[in-house]
Amino acid sequence: MSLKTPEQSKTTLTDLVLPSETNPLNNLFGGELLARMDRAASIAARRHSRRIVVTASVNHVAFNRAVPVGSVVTVEAKVSRAFKSSMEIYLDVWIEDRESGEKTKANEAIYTFVAVDETGRPVKVDDIYPETDLEKERFNGALRRKQLSLVLAGKMKPNDATELKALFV
Amino acid sequence: MSLKTPEQSKTTLTDLVLPSETNPLNNLFGGELLARMDRAASIAARRHSRRIVVTASVNHVAFNRAVPVGSVVTVEAKVSRAFKSSMEIYLDVWIEDRESGEKTKANEAIYTFVAVDETGRPVKVDDIYPETDLEKERFNGALRRKQLSLVLAGKMKPNDATELKALFV
Amino acid sequence: MSLKTPEQSKTTLTDLVLPSETNPLNNLFGGELLARMDRAASIAARRHSRRIVVTASVNHVAFNRAVPVGSVVTVEAKVSRAFKSSMEIYLDVWIEDRESGEKTKANEAIYTFVAVDETGRPVKVDDIYPETDLEKERFNGALRRKQLSLVLAGKMKPNDATELKALFV
Amino acid sequence: MSLKTPEQSKTTLTDLVLPSETNPLNNLFGGELLARMDRAASIAARRHSRRIVVTASVNHVAFNRAVPVGSVVTVEAKVSRAFKSSMEIYLDVWIEDRESGEKTKANEAIYTFVAVDETGRPVKVDDIYPETDLEKERFNGALRRKQLSLVLAGKMKPNDATELKALFV
Amino acid sequence: MSLKTPEQSKTTLTDLVLPSETNPLNNLFGGELLARMDRAASIAARRHSRRIVVTASVNHVAFNRAVPVGSVVTVEAKVSRAFKSSMEIYLDVWIEDRESGEKTKANEAIYTFVAVDETGRPVKVDDIYPETDLEKERFNGALRRKQLSLVLAGKMKPNDATELKALFV
Amino acid sequence: MSLKTPEQSKTTLTDLVLPSETNPLNNLFGGELLARMDRAASIAARRHSRRIVVTASVNHVAFNRAVPVGSVVTVEAKVSRAFKSSMEIYLDVWIEDRESGEKTKANEAIYTFVAVDETGRPVKVDDIYPETDLEKERFNGALRRKQLSLVLAGKMKPNDATELKALFV
Repeated sequence: MSLKTPEQSKTTLTDLVLPSETNPLNNLFGGELLARMDRAASIAARRHSRRIVVTASVNHVAFNRAVPVGSVVTVEAKVSRAFKSSMEIYLDVWIEDRESGEKTKANEAIYTFVAVDETGRPVKVDDIYPETDLEKERFNGALRRKQLSLVLAGKMKPNDATELKALFV
Repeated sequence: MSLKTPEQSKTTLTDLVLPSETNPLNNLFGGELLARMDRAASIAARRHSRRIVVTASVNHVAFNRAVPVGSVVTVEAKVSRAFKSSMEIYLDVWIEDRESGEKTKANEAIYTFVAVDETGRPVKVDDIYPETDLEKERFNGALRRKQLSLVLAGKMKPNDATELKALFV
Repeated sequence: MSLKTPEQSKTTLTDLVLPSETNPLNNLFGGELLARMDRAASIAARRHSRRIVVTASVNHVAFNRAVPVGSVVTVEAKVSRAFKSSMEIYLDVWIEDRESGEKTKANEAIYTFVAVDETGRPVKVDDIYPETDLEKERFNGALRRKQLSLVLAGKMKPNDATELKALFV
Repeated sequence: MSLKTPEQSKTTLTDLVLPSETNPLNNLFGGELLARMDRAASIAARRHSRRIVVTASVNHVAFNRAVPVGSVVTVEAKVSRAFKSSMEIYLDVWIEDRESGEKTKANEAIYTFVAVDETGRPVKVDDIYPETDLEKERFNGALRRKQLSLVLAGKMKPNDATELKALFV
Repeated sequence: MSLKTPEQSKTTLTDLVLPSETNPLNNLFGGELLARMDRAASIAARRHSRRIVVTASVNHVAFNRAVPVGSVVTVEAKVSRAFKSSMEIYLDVWIEDRESGEKTKANEAIYTFVAVDETGRPVKVDDIYPETDLEKERFNGALRRKQLSLVLAGKMKPNDATELKALFV
Repeated sequence: MSLKTPEQSKTTLTDLVLPSETNPLNNLFGGELLARMDRAASIAARRHSRRIVVTASVNHVAFNRAVPVGSVVTVEAKVSRAFKSSMEIYLDVWIEDRESGEKTKANEAIYTFVAVDETGRPVKVDDIYPETDLEKERFNGALRRKQLSLVLAGKMKPNDATELKALFV
């Protein structure tokens, strides 16, 4: 096992919003964006682990900005932290204005993937060594989010979630 | 404004898993299931509000069971609670075995939708009156989940999230 | 072999009409609705037989009402009668108005499926025991429709189609 | 109004069967073939009428031969007869063997389309003048099929369906 | 090995331009037309060779006319010449006006396919015997185009491309 | 008008090869790759021009390596040179091996796009200022390729294509 940086798994998926992917307000369906993010996240997880990877969970995703038809959308995914066989993937989504060329953040999302072998059994992956300030912040927050997942799934008692508990007391 | 039950918005989307929707292990892509759940949830939100609705957020979704190609997947969505213009939608996903006919729970998910007018501005929706024990439990948990969303988005201080805080102290 | 009710195979597929599925009048393409009904009918046939099933024929389908883009369409399929290895599936299609919540019948259709083993050979399925008045009416009409199919395919002489003939003499 | 031949509306749609369009036996889904036939039939109806056209009904379609993945499928559609604003379209479907180059008939189908103006109101179309023996046979059978549709839809009494009745008495 | 005519591989793919395939000017995306032409060309190559075929190259394709949504597009493909295991496919694309019924040429394209066995190794195909004047002209131009491909790929020196060189000196 | 670098329009589209996009050898269809490249190229052209852009032509594209199902494919597009309203886009396509992480070049392609206003009329775009050696080489080759396009389309006499002619004499 060795250490890898988030940058080594960085995956960029820039694509158009097609008319077939839009809701009655002519904005990208939430479900379509979730599917694109899942594909980008799976590639980042695969680049980190060099294994078959499967979606384990989607953490909180907020849709702060509508994405109109004809937009150019960039999804950027990086592994933010690894825990044994699971990887937290942090995604940033931007849309850009055609006329001004300006990019604005549309939303962020966090997915968790698990690396498996050909029979579907989890396998150990490399650890993450964060480099930038943002990568370090996301690396540190990952443990708290993992505890939150376990508490929400009923697999950890709130009192044992030390990182999470520290937020409230 | 009047009260409506979760049953009144109940939406069932039963469909096959097609070969084009599967990953290298021949199971349904996580992203595809997220997109199907988004469509079912949007219909439930629309049935409750009778308005145009847009995805506001996806809460924690865990993928506990792989869904193999050729499966019959049933997504069932109901509005679990309403807050002004937003609606929490609770989704249950089952797969069924062709030979035994047995249904097993594949996963649960919670989406939040907002009702808007033709210009995209939020509009008030009816409140929810839960009937069954399960509906009541989900109705009660919704406030805690809402606080969690606000805390995670940095829009509420952990100390003000009274429902959530009660879990830890 | 045992008896099963139509209710036991009931399959509900509620979904949106997306912009990519519409004709120049902005209504759902007939072909798209035919494909959705085929998927719902195949699930009902599979639930009844617990076998691999293949489309054998589509009986008369009338498109009485246009289905506009953005509609919520519900396809409901139930096995109406079984003959050895073949099953007649009766489908009812509704669209609902977003603002009033009112459901109106868009059309009905009848598909026939055959249950097969892994090599594609027909296998015997359970018989149907109709419960409601509507189910009984459809059960009784199924024999006449089967004779009509055979006559149209040149596999039965009109004179031998006793049920069908009774309509005209 | 003038007369047109079936040949003038002849439409050929030759395409591959892709893996995403197949069932668990690796054959083309019935629903996919129904959708392809609908598109080919709509083009034939449009070529005959030079109008917007909408699917009115699908008559009996039998799926006699499975169509395996990777097949080349040819759908050929011609208007077989016109009645005021409606057109009967006769479809022939062939698949061809890659190695021998041999074409075999997979199935036939009959669709009915209606020509409409921009507001969706039916408009009169040209009549059909059949040329070959097969075109004449299909032209003559169209009236009987039309009566059958009306009887099945409850819009004509069996006793008034003179063409159809002649089959049985 | 024997000789075959271009007519023997002729493939016609007539289909609609759907809303999901259009750009912001409501015309067919260039990429969609490229994909349709690839499918038609692959069928023509397969009909000529009766082998599995793979795209080897796309020669110059000019998009001279926009193809609006709702158009009927006809792609016609014929093998214009064969070289050992490779086949040059010439494609003609027409769109037709719904109201006048008039067909206009939208563009031409030239693809090259290679016939392979089940392991992907190239196999020899039959030669082409052109019949019409247009087929002969395309047959003769094919050698010049082949040299151009080799020169552009750096696999032939311009000075050895005798057919091509003759254009300039 | 000002100068822009190729880097300013650089567009990266990394995505999976799904089972629905593959041929009988389980490799990506040539047509699918052509469509992906068209989308990436259109975004690069739009980033350079900040206008609506339409595909004008595809220059020679060679498919040197098969792209197997499950591959991660990266399409990278940059504007290599601008001529009045047209832009030449140079595309590089890589596939990466899951286990070794190694990237190999699958193919290159050159597309030409035209910038237009809302009515579809061509508009002038900024010129390109190449920075790296590769960008300079592609910038210089663009004039020769443009002449080749014009000669092939019969819009320029071979003798006037001075850049191109220099290759042969």
